[in-house]
Amino acid sequence: MGEYEHILLKRDGDTATVTMNRAARRNSLSAEHLAELLAAFREVGESDATGVVLAGAGPVFSAGHDFADVAARDLMEVRALLRLCTDLMRTIQSVPQVVVARVHGLATAAGCQLVASCDLAVAAESAGFALPGGKGGWFCHTPAVPVARAVGRKRLMELALTGDPIDAATALEWGLVNRVVPDTELDDAVADLLARATRGSRASKAMGKQTLYAQLDRPEEDAYAIALEVMASASQLPGAREGMAAFLEKRRPEWPD
Amino acid sequence: MGEYEHILLKRDGDTATVTMNRAARRNSLSAEHLAELLAAFREVGESDATGVVLAGAGPVFSAGHDFADVAARDLMEVRALLRLCTDLMRTIQSVPQVVVARVHGLATAAGCQLVASCDLAVAAESAGFALPGGKGGWFCHTPAVPVARAVGRKRLMELALTGDPIDAATALEWGLVNRVVPDTELDDAVADLLARATRGSRASKAMGKQTLYAQLDRPEEDAYAIALEVMASASQLPGAREGMAAFLEKRRPEWPD
Amino acid sequence: MGEYEHILLKRDGDTATVTMNRAARRNSLSAEHLAELLAAFREVGESDATGVVLAGAGPVFSAGHDFADVAARDLMEVRALLRLCTDLMRTIQSVPQVVVARVHGLATAAGCQLVASCDLAVAAESAGFALPGGKGGWFCHTPAVPVARAVGRKRLMELALTGDPIDAATALEWGLVNRVVPDTELDDAVADLLARATRGSRASKAMGKQTLYAQLDRPEEDAYAIALEVMASASQLPGAREGMAAFLEKRRPEWPD
Repeated sequence: MGEYEHILLKRDGDTATVTMNRAARRNSLSAEHLAELLAAFREVGESDATGVVLAGAGPVFSAGHDFADVAARDLMEVRALLRLCTDLMRTIQSVPQVVVARVHGLATAAGCQLVASCDLAVAAESAGFALPGGKGGWFCHTPAVPVARAVGRKRLMELALTGDPIDAATALEWGLVNRVVPDTELDDAVADLLARATRGSRASKAMGKQTLYAQLDRPEEDAYAIALEVMASASQLPGAREGMAAFLEKRRPEWPD
Repeated sequence: MGEYEHILLKRDGDTATVTMNRAARRNSLSAEHLAELLAAFREVGESDATGVVLAGAGPVFSAGHDFADVAARDLMEVRALLRLCTDLMRTIQSVPQVVVARVHGLATAAGCQLVASCDLAVAAESAGFALPGGKGGWFCHTPAVPVARAVGRKRLMELALTGDPIDAATALEWGLVNRVVPDTELDDAVADLLARATRGSRASKAMGKQTLYAQLDRPEEDAYAIALEVMASASQLPGAREGMAAFLEKRRPEWPD
Repeated sequence: MGEYEHILLKRDGDTATVTMNRAARRNSLSAEHLAELLAAFREVGESDATGVVLAGAGPVFSAGHDFADVAARDLMEVRALLRLCTDLMRTIQSVPQVVVARVHGLATAAGCQLVASCDLAVAAESAGFALPGGKGGWFCHTPAVPVARAVGRKRLMELALTGDPIDAATALEWGLVNRVVPDTELDDAVADLLARATRGSRASKAMGKQTLYAQLDRPEEDAYAIALEVMASASQLPGAREGMAAFLEKRRPEWPD
């Protein structure tokens, strides 16, 4: 694995864990931190891991952009920072692995965007979520993109306009996270959900995840045009053949990939 | 009514009931079964029925595609099968009648897609819903299209990636079904919801349903461009005229269609 | 402030309150009423108010279109009425202020559309919401546009096809409103939510709100293309600079706008 300064990258069996490790800065997302996260997801994306956990060291998951890093930038420099940040969010969605956010403490602004951008999310009961730019001077425009797509319009407006945090139970009810568990059970719950989400053929799962993001947010006819062609071609892969044969022969499948 | 081998088509008053009748195969959707379902919905669509119930005979609603039918197909043959399946889903949405899914047992893969594609759905308390392709070898790409549009992004990811079933109460909370009732009250609940959903002018309802599907999933400005023109022209129909006149004259309307 | 016949326009501190004042007609939306609402939102939009409350005088919030005004119109005249109505809905979303609906009694048809079109909504416990066109002769095509985007597909279908009302608790669960409170606490709850939603830099909030509506309902990549450019340019505004400086210097910000 590559060497990193701001993050920890660990491999345990089929699972890679990417840990934001700037606890003293509340895992805020400086340009260097973002660049390392992007590099780590690209490295993991090319590995044979089947799942990825995104976690934060210290008291919070992530506080979002690092104002010390933003305040001195001119327009073109902020654009470059935001393009880097958006690249990270979209890379999380495009890697072949299932990515689960492990959320504790607070996930705010681009930190909340990370939660919304991971395929799945598990939160500790004590976790909170916010888009605080709305009560400050720099609105959470880009964090609102994936958050809106998880929680719906009126709830997005409330988060983005008030800047107030919601608790984990509300995040579950609104569809921003998939599980809420007592803080002491967070790692077990993440491992359990990831194990469930990584069963089956690896190639099939990768195509599946990537196609889901391709078809979301589109008129249904356009979504079908994408999903139908992928599903037809996927039927010819060894994994699909083996899955169907095992089902029909009433035996356990042996995934070829 | 036409003659069918794999389904039952019944007419009772203003309601047509289409029953998948391959109980021994868990109402799986072979090409022949899909073709009959499509023919039945086209036949009902041209009839004067006002509502349609889609039900399944035997222990489950539908187990989705029939692997015995898929396993031997090459790419072009699977494409043809999926085009037939997608035609069925979109025909359910385009017929002028209100279509209610009556769900018991399990609705999995393309069976879950059928539930999501019907205008409304009523589930028995014991019913379960799943996109199991995610834990196998052939991902549920096309079933995920309408399911995503009912339950939202993070919940779609959980269903599609884990393949685990959700129970009826969860399906209600997530917006995949409209009602959950004790198993013994399923038929009454379906009839009650259908009666409520088929009141009023038949022509108005047909335009209404079809326009809803046309405007969903689009930017709001595009959606208004469609809905505004339909609503303006609909105001000139006899049903609209009669409805407004009856309201203003404080009498019961007599629908002309 | 301008003079109006059908509405009341009041300014109290930073908040403007637009009150539909046709109680005897259940605040139905005749062409004259719609034109005054549109003029009032345009007037407020150009003022230095930071928030707007939309309320209704008398027993209900609004009963939607006034059939006495619609019944005699020909196609081009209904089109003009609906274009005016749609202009109002989109102006509510484009004014720089945060707009909160204060809902009591009933919000039906275009009245329910108003609730869905406001940025935020607070409802009294006794309030009800309906798209009743579905059980009549003139389907609620345009009201369904923003309502669908708040509550999701299956719930939209139920509202629009049955025409039956939902209560305030259901509206909250479905995401159509942000708060439900005892009737006697309605004004306090509206004021509290509006105060929370109008903190921070006024210019930042205005760009934020307008950009949220621009990016919603689009594929995520298109949404990012919009949000990223706005967020980059917003970083150069005095409000963003002051917000970051105050945060880094651990002092309270003084918003320049």
